[in-house]
Amino acid sequence: MAVDLLGGDDAPDVVVDGALRAVRADPDLHLLLVGPTRAAGALVDALDPAQRARLTLRPARTAVETADDLTAARAENTVRAAVAAIRAGQADALVSAGSTGATVTAAALGLGRWPQIRRPALAATLPGVSGPVVLLDVGGSMEPSPATLARHAVLGAAYAAIAHGLDAPRVGLLSVGTEPGKGDRPRRLADPMLRATELPGDARYVGLVEGYDVCLGTRADVVVTDGFTGNVLLKAIEGAYAMAGGPPPDGGAPRAAALLGVAGTVVVCHGAARPADIASGIALAAHLWRRAATDRVAALLATDRTDRTTDTEVRTS
Amino acid sequence: MAVDLLGGDDAPDVVVDGALRAVRADPDLHLLLVGPTRAAGALVDALDPAQRARLTLRPARTAVETADDLTAARAENTVRAAVAAIRAGQADALVSAGSTGATVTAAALGLGRWPQIRRPALAATLPGVSGPVVLLDVGGSMEPSPATLARHAVLGAAYAAIAHGLDAPRVGLLSVGTEPGKGDRPRRLADPMLRATELPGDARYVGLVEGYDVCLGTRADVVVTDGFTGNVLLKAIEGAYAMAGGPPPDGGAPRAAALLGVAGTVVVCHGAARPADIASGIALAAHLWRRAATDRVAALLATDRTDRTTDTEVRTS
Repeated sequence: MAVDLLGGDDAPDVVVDGALRAVRADPDLHLLLVGPTRAAGALVDALDPAQRARLTLRPARTAVETADDLTAARAENTVRAAVAAIRAGQADALVSAGSTGATVTAAALGLGRWPQIRRPALAATLPGVSGPVVLLDVGGSMEPSPATLARHAVLGAAYAAIAHGLDAPRVGLLSVGTEPGKGDRPRRLADPMLRATELPGDARYVGLVEGYDVCLGTRADVVVTDGFTGNVLLKAIEGAYAMAGGPPPDGGAPRAAALLGVAGTVVVCHGAARPADIASGIALAAHLWRRAATDRVAALLATDRTDRTTDTEVRTS
Repeated sequence: MAVDLLGGDDAPDVVVDGALRAVRADPDLHLLLVGPTRAAGALVDALDPAQRARLTLRPARTAVETADDLTAARAENTVRAAVAAIRAGQADALVSAGSTGATVTAAALGLGRWPQIRRPALAATLPGVSGPVVLLDVGGSMEPSPATLARHAVLGAAYAAIAHGLDAPRVGLLSVGTEPGKGDRPRRLADPMLRATELPGDARYVGLVEGYDVCLGTRADVVVTDGFTGNVLLKAIEGAYAMAGGPPPDGGAPRAAALLGVAGTVVVCHGAARPADIASGIALAAHLWRRAATDRVAALLATDRTDRTTDTEVRTS
């Protein structure tokens, strides 16, 4: 797992601390630490020799290390170096708490996009009443076109089936009520489009769902929305758990999300991630990689797409 | 307070129960119950004579009382009858848990709109860490044009100052990050527009805020968004509180919102409102009416607008 030491509001300290926790929690985990040698040194010193053997350091070219206003540029360097390590076969996955835009761009350019995916989506998993609830997009693409919402439904269905092993996941479109016709224009157009869309993983579209369903998961296992709404929603849920004295025992609003649409395992952590969030982001990346989730989701989408592609073939008989 | 007995998913039972609680809780409250005599009869019977004296019944013309699929049409009749009662001076305010669209339309047509308000907005108040947080819009207008967002900021600032007595409220625009430039196109356009907007009630614009701020209120007292986002957000917060084992002691996500932009005191309750929600909606309407909030907010906006109007005057010197 390549870890971007310079990504995040409180990098590198928080990232180093999170990486430490991840290495200690998972005895099979190897980390490739990408960033300044100085920061990684502290991490290495804190570990026992056996754990230290599971760390590799990749000093990233950080042209400007002092100017605070160039933090973003530095982090982009580390995320690009981490992507390069994946390309070179030196890492299997990437975890970064840096700018989502920079990570998405570096991953899309360096690893390639899946066919038919213009803007990759971020999928977050919340603990519902009776199982995981996948919410997407939570920040990858801001504009809610009906076609993008339909694409998110396909991605989310495949991700839920493969990453979480959900059988025939129920997919809902987030809106302001459950009756058909509820919502703004993109939702009103996407709803009939989704009814006509064949979803992968034996998923079925259950229609419109509401804000409660993101937390409870009683109506749907996958909740589809645009990146703007998903992002503010996830943070509002986090705020509500903070006000209520803490998240429920099974976990609260996640601060790590899987990037769907690029040809590699990429996990994006919240910029304000704490060490525990970084550690759970690394654990998520390891989980996805062990399940070969990215390749299998991409393969499922490719199978799913075969029928449609033939629809557009020119028949010359 | 005119109460629409037929509005809401579980009307009239839930509304009757809620009205009962409201009458018992507030000894100065008089209710005008608008709906079928049969439903109101149960309410009247449950009260002691002194409480009964504070109830008036207004049988609403409900042409179709049996067909379930015509429930919406029936509820619209009661909400129109309630608006007519306000026009006739027989009621001071209206509370309905019926269709938001029907209530907004009936109120806008029957009571009139404030100048420059095309689509009235719904303002919900959440209990933050150190005071109330006003979130708007939560369902009045779905399309997030920059001009609408700027108008919501003005309405929300005036409402926070008058309805909640907040001195110089801080107004934030909900987005996916706090740095300028974060968010979708409407937010990116509205942010500079709001920096240039003079807000009423000595309010000041604090820039972009995030989902957490809706619950915590640490950055802003008024959080401005479009009706789609606000609605799903409010319900997600409600879901999070349910998952966390209940809302914090000061209260959770409100199920009643004030309608801003019509010339009258109108409170819209959630369609799935429970008796306690109806009672708190009635209490909110009474609070707003006692503060003359609607008139004072409208007056504040009119004063606030004077400067701008003169900007466009043709100077003939």
